[in-house]
Amino acid sequence: MHADVVPPPFFCPFPEAVHPDAEELERRAIEWIDDVRVHRTARERARLIGSNSAEFYARFAPTGPTEHVLTAVLWVYWGFAFDDAWCDDGPCSDDPSRFLPMAGQVQRTVESGAAPAEPYAAALHTIVTRMRDQVSGTVTRRFTDAHRHWLQNVAWQVGNRAAGRMPTLPEYLTMRLGSSGGPPTTALLEIANAIEVPPPEMDSPAVRAVTEMTQLVAALDNDLQSFHKEMTETHTDQNIITVLCHHDRLDPAAALDAAVSIRDRVLLRLLDLRERARTGASEELRTYLDGLGHAIRGNIDWAATVPRYLAGAPGTPATSVRDQPNDPNPAPLPFPAFSWWWDRSL
Amino acid sequence: MHADVVPPPFFCPFPEAVHPDAEELERRAIEWIDDVRVHRTARERARLIGSNSAEFYARFAPTGPTEHVLTAVLWVYWGFAFDDAWCDDGPCSDDPSRFLPMAGQVQRTVESGAAPAEPYAAALHTIVTRMRDQVSGTVTRRFTDAHRHWLQNVAWQVGNRAAGRMPTLPEYLTMRLGSSGGPPTTALLEIANAIEVPPPEMDSPAVRAVTEMTQLVAALDNDLQSFHKEMTETHTDQNIITVLCHHDRLDPAAALDAAVSIRDRVLLRLLDLRERARTGASEELRTYLDGLGHAIRGNIDWAATVPRYLAGAPGTPATSVRDQPNDPNPAPLPFPAFSWWWDRSL
Repeated sequence: MHADVVPPPFFCPFPEAVHPDAEELERRAIEWIDDVRVHRTARERARLIGSNSAEFYARFAPTGPTEHVLTAVLWVYWGFAFDDAWCDDGPCSDDPSRFLPMAGQVQRTVESGAAPAEPYAAALHTIVTRMRDQVSGTVTRRFTDAHRHWLQNVAWQVGNRAAGRMPTLPEYLTMRLGSSGGPPTTALLEIANAIEVPPPEMDSPAVRAVTEMTQLVAALDNDLQSFHKEMTETHTDQNIITVLCHHDRLDPAAALDAAVSIRDRVLLRLLDLRERARTGASEELRTYLDGLGHAIRGNIDWAATVPRYLAGAPGTPATSVRDQPNDPNPAPLPFPAFSWWWDRSL
Repeated sequence: MHADVVPPPFFCPFPEAVHPDAEELERRAIEWIDDVRVHRTARERARLIGSNSAEFYARFAPTGPTEHVLTAVLWVYWGFAFDDAWCDDGPCSDDPSRFLPMAGQVQRTVESGAAPAEPYAAALHTIVTRMRDQVSGTVTRRFTDAHRHWLQNVAWQVGNRAAGRMPTLPEYLTMRLGSSGGPPTTALLEIANAIEVPPPEMDSPAVRAVTEMTQLVAALDNDLQSFHKEMTETHTDQNIITVLCHHDRLDPAAALDAAVSIRDRVLLRLLDLRERARTGASEELRTYLDGLGHAIRGNIDWAATVPRYLAGAPGTPATSVRDQPNDPNPAPLPFPAFSWWWDRSL
């Protein structure tokens, strides 16, 4: 479908950065993979290593202590393995009645710190144990709640898939905010950087908004990055393009343009609010806000070469970035669930 | 089924207490009910008022500032209305693909503070607005995450119902920890008492454990309180008795005895840990720990007369309490997801 429709370079003013120990992180993560063995075949192992999760989080936390970054890296590998086995494929991926009990018990592993028998939960347990040794109870709690947000929204996506239901745009954006894995991935910034943002800062409306906007921008970037692959495979699953095509009756080129505009408007507001949140911020908050920038840029740079997004579309041009938005509209998105990001009181 | 099988008096050493403004709280809540109008008929309105939610939370927070307790009271009414319309009955109650998008968008109302059009979400919005005006961002965040925990676990219950699947005992306990509404109800203790427990205390393993144990004891008490009603109506839905009958092949009398033992063992450990958590605790934490005791006792006293549990079983004896457990066994429950509550390190 429309091989000539290609996303433009991504608006992203954050500079590229990678942790100097990226290779060591990958080597140690592969040892862990071979230890916990959630893969069943050599092909699954190669696919998991090919997620380049070490590079991914080495870009998110380029200056974190290596042992702490490793904890985040392991979770990202785990997340991809879990996604492949339970969320995007497999018998649970279109059956919420099977997905929910599995996800609920996996989530309990994070909360309880218990060592369960089921292989994915057992692998997750090794990561949670590292985490509890490295960071405070408050940081662990934030990760735990973010992890639940992710699993709940994946269940929502699974439910829509089961019902053959294409969500409306505001529903999709609400769902995608969590289902992309953004909440645990941004919660890992505190762990990877060995910080705890003071609660009055972390729970302020401005920092909550910047965190959510980062999650949405990165999630839409993943949609745009897999656009070419998905169009080639004629997927009909839920993503920003299929949602816009379906409900607004746009052709793929017009849907792509609309999607890029939504994404750029959110990022523009994020830049503004992030700068304001920096005024008078603690050192921990400044590190966290920097991390959100690294996350957006790192996600783009990682996706440019990761086999996961390129597979099936060998002719896809590598992602590049630009300094200016597609749509400089400073007005709020016209959806009540998101327009508060533009409140003047933030 | 076995009208002669009746739960024994509930082991509960906490004294009875009720807020002096309980009647005013009910009067003002009824004004709110008539304002937001989530009921469609006079019968639904009467059923909602008959939940005695004002009395319920007046027992949970007997000394909180009235305006703050009112916020909690309104949420409890809202929770019962939502339960009746979406969780226990109605087209979503056995269809996770319908429940999940609805719950996800309701949850977004709590996060975003946006005023939505859908009546239940709009009613919830009025409560969240009160909350944001009364308490800190951190307390609001805790409530928000607790609210998601509840909705996710209700979805799990809905999924099991759809699949005709009876969970195992450890799965049931994990699910029930959230699906009963325990997480938001205990999170409301901070709001109703106008306190913020300092994060290092709130996120400590001991306080997390005491909080979870309170949620489980109250949830099992609700199972036991509706035991007679459910047996009379020959319900086959998931509760501690049906789970034990199904998987352990117990008759109702033996299942009841096993359930009371589980519940009493948890409460015994809770008493021990709550006392230890009190040592050196801040005033806010002491208020919170007192609140957890009021919650367990208040839930029992409320259920003794509320029409919701008595309907259909007019001959049910009122609940009473006793000082000693059915089973004084101090050993951990033999389930990894829960045995950490007995860790010596707590």
